Amino acid sequence: MVDLIRKKRDGQKLSKEEIDFFINGYVKGEIPDYQVSALMMAIFFKGMDDEETGQLTQAMLHSGEVLDLSAIKGFKVDKHSTGGVGDKTSLVLAPMVASLGVPVAKMSGRGLGHTGGTIDKLESFPGFSTAITNEQFIHNVNTVGISIMGQTKDLAPADKLLYALRDVTATVDNMSLIASSIMSKKLAAGADGIVLDVKSGSGAFMKNDKDAFELAEKMVAIGKHAGVKTMAVVSDMDQPLGRAVGNAMEVKEAIDTLNGKGPEDLRELCLTLGSHMVTFAGKASSTEEARKMLEENLSNNKALDKLADFIGAQGGKREDVYDPSNLPKASKTLEFTADKDCYVSSIMSEEVGISSLLLGGGRRSKEDIIDLSVGIYLSKKVGEKCSKGETVATLYGNDDAKLSDALERLKGAYTFSDQEVSKNRLIKGIVE
Amino acid sequence: MVDLIRKKRDGQKLSKEEIDFFINGYVKGEIPDYQVSALMMAIFFKGMDDEETGQLTQAMLHSGEVLDLSAIKGFKVDKHSTGGVGDKTSLVLAPMVASLGVPVAKMSGRGLGHTGGTIDKLESFPGFSTAITNEQFIHNVNTVGISIMGQTKDLAPADKLLYALRDVTATVDNMSLIASSIMSKKLAAGADGIVLDVKSGSGAFMKNDKDAFELAEKMVAIGKHAGVKTMAVVSDMDQPLGRAVGNAMEVKEAIDTLNGKGPEDLRELCLTLGSHMVTFAGKASSTEEARKMLEENLSNNKALDKLADFIGAQGGKREDVYDPSNLPKASKTLEFTADKDCYVSSIMSEEVGISSLLLGGGRRSKEDIIDLSVGIYLSKKVGEKCSKGETVATLYGNDDAKLSDALERLKGAYTFSDQEVSKNRLIKGIVE
Repeated sequence: MVDLIRKKRDGQKLSKEEIDFFINGYVKGEIPDYQVSALMMAIFFKGMDDEETGQLTQAMLHSGEVLDLSAIKGFKVDKHSTGGVGDKTSLVLAPMVASLGVPVAKMSGRGLGHTGGTIDKLESFPGFSTAITNEQFIHNVNTVGISIMGQTKDLAPADKLLYALRDVTATVDNMSLIASSIMSKKLAAGADGIVLDVKSGSGAFMKNDKDAFELAEKMVAIGKHAGVKTMAVVSDMDQPLGRAVGNAMEVKEAIDTLNGKGPEDLRELCLTLGSHMVTFAGKASSTEEARKMLEENLSNNKALDKLADFIGAQGGKREDVYDPSNLPKASKTLEFTADKDCYVSSIMSEEVGISSLLLGGGRRSKEDIIDLSVGIYLSKKVGEKCSKGETVATLYGNDDAKLSDALERLKGAYTFSDQEVSKNRLIKGIVE
Repeated sequence: MVDLIRKKRDGQKLSKEEIDFFINGYVKGEIPDYQVSALMMAIFFKGMDDEETGQLTQAMLHSGEVLDLSAIKGFKVDKHSTGGVGDKTSLVLAPMVASLGVPVAKMSGRGLGHTGGTIDKLESFPGFSTAITNEQFIHNVNTVGISIMGQTKDLAPADKLLYALRDVTATVDNMSLIASSIMSKKLAAGADGIVLDVKSGSGAFMKNDKDAFELAEKMVAIGKHAGVKTMAVVSDMDQPLGRAVGNAMEVKEAIDTLNGKGPEDLRELCLTLGSHMVTFAGKASSTEEARKMLEENLSNNKALDKLADFIGAQGGKREDVYDPSNLPKASKTLEFTADKDCYVSSIMSEEVGISSLLLGGGRRSKEDIIDLSVGIYLSKKVGEKCSKGETVATLYGNDDAKLSDALERLKGAYTFSDQEVSKNRLIKGIVE
């Protein structure tokens, strides 16, 4: 292992055997943390080429269980987002593409810190559960068209170990390590195709477009190298996606979008990602054709019906999809109003996420229990005009002190300008 | 600690408080190995400036006991060599400078791998021991003029921990870390002045002159910054020092040198180092004057008498210094002879050290017991002419199989040339 660290330290390329040796040894506990952290720091400085990155991904992917989804009929496409604020894309996308016969077999996670998680959001439907068996999961995909389950502990355990170590040794910020971490988990989840949503901006892991495109390219290369159809959309996270932030509030916004309403940016991103998923699955011959098919199913209620089927199949009530008044609702509101005529010039997504966390809508640590009812509605987004006294955003909560703290935080997230401000460009590019 | 690692990773300078924090936390077991190894790798890539290096040295120096030698009268000068093969300098230097009234209060170590240790060599005198108390040590320096004791475990424990970690994480080869490691131990040993012998060449830690001078400069800067008179001699280790390699054999060569005989390179190095020690101690007004005084004490037996006093005071017999036939002797010899007329063009010191190790004269691991009697005598050194059939070197051992293995290894250490070869330059420079 010392020779291997020295090799990378001196800028040499690691072989497949060396990468397998260190990943297997680390998972077995035969190679100590302190050698792996030194290697991670050497990789931080010397990097890894595409071949090494691919081999690291494969080694981590095969360090535990690899899901076998062959019992599911059709071409399985998974979507992965690098994480943002107000990102309820999965809630819209899954029923949208499933309504066109694309099987959705998805593993999702819970929220932590300023970002939310799909499972938490779905639990806003009373009775809904992702604690299902693998057999139930496969049965539901084959019969309903969609199933979502929690991430099993056995997928890519090497990545879990490595990420925890990188987190405490300042070795997270390396593109190859980030790309292999994400892709090892995605590939272990067994899909035939992967559509990636790489977020770029202040509220995302990648703070600028250059980094976002670099990460997108690395991940697409890894996916293709592993024989899985892969593409990436680089999308804006310089402000939250849509207008709702908070679990039940985001579910309602997703339902609005499936009803052909909902915010324009959320609808556009879902149509872009969805058209690639549908095309990957061979249900359309071009993304243009796929887009038309998806737009149709947003207007004829087929996508919404698919969500109802899915919620019903996993313990929730179908009716709640058509009448969301049954979902958790906060008891109090607090308004953030404009104190002069102005335009919104920026909204720091991370601060909005933290404001929602302060309301009780997020977790500081994994053990925290969250309040699904609370959240924030952004009436004004970047480029929009506010008149003096007009509502910029509304906070929904159950506790006056928390509402007041969250309002202070939310105010800090916004900046305003006297001059007109151009709107953010949502789709920054496609990598395929 | 993560912020501290990130700071160094990003090329920023660490403050005194940050360095103290990580050294103290590491020694207390509050900061884990994996964070320290990541930091060491970041330092490997980003380096430390002289101020950081000095502060790291101070933090390690104060991580344990600092010897108080104030009970010893006079100006105490310590000598430290970065390690080589055949380096019996301390055995000659200590009595030489002590014979001029410079107190020698020295901590020494044992040999490991291809390099020998002063304590092992001294134990060739039957009865001699370095297992003495601090009180005895100070008493002996004040009465006899010299005392040598084993390194106590409590000196610079942070360095011990850090070195062990660096050794297994490929983070040894950084000048600032090497310099602070050596100097923290030397400064903790409490001398008023430090004379460094930095070896340069194939058999040394520093393989070339550029690195050797860089290390010398860093160590001298650290010493001066700590308020201790410090200088360094950069000397050749492209071949072993002197002609004898092996514990008792090196003692005999040291005695020869104290008798005004002995190999020229050993004598020259001892006079160079010794004249600086004597000048530091204020016993001469210039190194030229000091050198003359030392040469005189080599010819009038005063230096040899001082060795006898020292050996006698620590359990050995004075007479053995004057008649070394009582020292351990090997029972068998094996000759390495030239198979044609030629000149010695190089002798790889490390290979000679390993050949001696194979004879039983060194340790592979700390627990090994060594045979003090065995060793190698180099009749021919670089630049010297060998006639066909003439003895190049003689191996002394107690086991035919070991002698035969050692001979093979020794043959590989030598290269020969048909053309005349210039001799190595012993003293490469002075840093002060």
